[in-house]
Amino acid sequence: MINIRKPHLVILSEGKDLFKAVISAEILQDAIKAISAIIDESRFEISSDKLVARAVDPANAAMVSLELAGDAFISMEGTECEIGVDLGRFSEVLGMADRSGEIELELDPNTHKLDITMGGFSYKLSLLDPSTLRKAPTVPVLDLPAEIALSGVVFRRMIKAAEMVSDHMSMGVRDGVFFMEATGDSDHVSMDLTGSDLISIVPAEVRSLYSLDYLSDISKGVGNASEVVINLGRDLPASIRFELAGGDCMVKYVLAPRIESD
Amino acid sequence: MINIRKPHLVILSEGKDLFKAVISAEILQDAIKAISAIIDESRFEISSDKLVARAVDPANAAMVSLELAGDAFISMEGTECEIGVDLGRFSEVLGMADRSGEIELELDPNTHKLDITMGGFSYKLSLLDPSTLRKAPTVPVLDLPAEIALSGVVFRRMIKAAEMVSDHMSMGVRDGVFFMEATGDSDHVSMDLTGSDLISIVPAEVRSLYSLDYLSDISKGVGNASEVVINLGRDLPASIRFELAGGDCMVKYVLAPRIESD
Amino acid sequence: MINIRKPHLVILSEGKDLFKAVISAEILQDAIKAISAIIDESRFEISSDKLVARAVDPANAAMVSLELAGDAFISMEGTECEIGVDLGRFSEVLGMADRSGEIELELDPNTHKLDITMGGFSYKLSLLDPSTLRKAPTVPVLDLPAEIALSGVVFRRMIKAAEMVSDHMSMGVRDGVFFMEATGDSDHVSMDLTGSDLISIVPAEVRSLYSLDYLSDISKGVGNASEVVINLGRDLPASIRFELAGGDCMVKYVLAPRIESD
Repeated sequence: MINIRKPHLVILSEGKDLFKAVISAEILQDAIKAISAIIDESRFEISSDKLVARAVDPANAAMVSLELAGDAFISMEGTECEIGVDLGRFSEVLGMADRSGEIELELDPNTHKLDITMGGFSYKLSLLDPSTLRKAPTVPVLDLPAEIALSGVVFRRMIKAAEMVSDHMSMGVRDGVFFMEATGDSDHVSMDLTGSDLISIVPAEVRSLYSLDYLSDISKGVGNASEVVINLGRDLPASIRFELAGGDCMVKYVLAPRIESD
Repeated sequence: MINIRKPHLVILSEGKDLFKAVISAEILQDAIKAISAIIDESRFEISSDKLVARAVDPANAAMVSLELAGDAFISMEGTECEIGVDLGRFSEVLGMADRSGEIELELDPNTHKLDITMGGFSYKLSLLDPSTLRKAPTVPVLDLPAEIALSGVVFRRMIKAAEMVSDHMSMGVRDGVFFMEATGDSDHVSMDLTGSDLISIVPAEVRSLYSLDYLSDISKGVGNASEVVINLGRDLPASIRFELAGGDCMVKYVLAPRIESD
Repeated sequence: MINIRKPHLVILSEGKDLFKAVISAEILQDAIKAISAIIDESRFEISSDKLVARAVDPANAAMVSLELAGDAFISMEGTECEIGVDLGRFSEVLGMADRSGEIELELDPNTHKLDITMGGFSYKLSLLDPSTLRKAPTVPVLDLPAEIALSGVVFRRMIKAAEMVSDHMSMGVRDGVFFMEATGDSDHVSMDLTGSDLISIVPAEVRSLYSLDYLSDISKGVGNASEVVINLGRDLPASIRFELAGGDCMVKYVLAPRIESD
């Protein structure tokens, strides 16, 4: 077998590309955890004032985008360039950091590695050639009339309930009430979320069915986020998003619906 | 293979049987955990003023009975009827409840399911045909002269010690002292429990050998019960019981002895 | 196969050998955990004023010695003799003890077992014939000029960082700074430990490579020891030691270096 992949040759324009940043460990850990929940590798687009990652899962069923604005960083400078990151490995390295500490990131133009430094700890992370990764997807423009805001804890509880009986789960709004439902071979579970369960709701009569495999992964990415915003339509993709770092870090998932067969 | 099991046809007299109750999540969780420790499925006998479950394990070595008096419920009404419950599934659903919350149970005469509701969360649990489950055993009348009361924590510690060396354990009273003993191929472990280890003791010279598989399962059901009462005789079954809900919920195990071979 | 091992015949001079001691559960648990981290069975040399265990791992790459001075015990008496102990089993028994409690140890000359007693709990541990265990190694005299003292927590963090990329790790001192380094197929991790990371350092230009399998086991033995002292040389074994019981219990590992191949 001839391996014609040339991992590092095309990553960076020699000596020109630049990325150097300092960020709180907590923000970077949560941001990378959010995208690594559904994908293993991602392109990161670096520019002078932000860092953006966009990726789609191999089955094209779920998309994630992460946008870290300049203000999410303690300091940051960059030129327009693109790198490819193994998210599993990156997460593991970030796991070494004290959440209350700071992390320094710097592209090394000579080795084509990302130098990750926290205190005396230094890790040289090999980068992937972004041209070997899937193209960053275009975020679809969707008209999803219902919008529900709830805590990450309540979101995770919905997923957990559905997993008891099925591998699919419906979400929707009926008579102004947000609900989830899952039907298994013999049992049926449902949850009506109102009042103190929700942060806010913009109601509209909607309902769509989703794969629990993906929702479960997304719920891990969401973690204990204080506010998760879900947008739903009729048999349309769901948009699930939350913010970190006071809004300077935005994570958004788009999940394709399944066809209801009954 | 022809499956002639008709799961739901004979459960309920159409439109006549009734069971509707509200109970604290904590009591129901602990009660179901206690019986699911040794059996997977059980009949529940419903009547106007109590709920009783009695089951024997497939090997006929251990029996469990659970009695929830009317006062264990916040509210309860029922007619004489019998249902069959998959305890593993029931436990899992109860696990979704906040221990400080309330759980509503209601038989649905149309679907032959048990509706379990906690706040906005609703679960329709398919019931088993009780006629396909083993007959509820008659509780044997035993003359077990020694009675030892101790905490669930101390009870579990005894079992854990015995498991280090053997798959059998003796319990007994010798010279007024409650003891356990286990002998393995090379090592030997014993525990004398006196004074502050016990809550109370009615001594009698007794000793019997039991399977640790069952005792281990029972110790999981007992959990951290504040008081476990053990009745023992000479080569006789052990009765192991504890109460929940201030005495309105009683759980009792009866475990057959093994023959000492030495 | 003829099994000519005679487990208990030669352990003790009938009726003459004696070992009887009381010790705090915490000290004995931590001491046995430290040696069981790298070996499964060990000889214990008993004398009138101390208990010493010395063993080498089957691959002859790591050695551990444990010395419990008489003052580490609440009370102790012994005659010169040697016993063989299954450390896994011994650890499991000690795990039953309340850390704040006391453990009584006594050789039973009739059964050739070690009676372990904690409160009403009693365990008779079968001993191994020490003549069937490997000879206690002679502790090599090494000139290891650099000495670094750090906490068990920081030591474990170094090992964990190296495990992300490789199965080997270098430790050394460069320009007066203690460092660790590990190089994997693509990534590289390093840590410079200075100032508040260290308790003290006696610098010398040294560097050696070690197997992470052993360092990982040793780091488990070290646990949360408040001070671990590492002595290093150039391509020489590392000495890693710590104290328990205010210095009355000493644990020392000696780990052979690997050859750096680059």
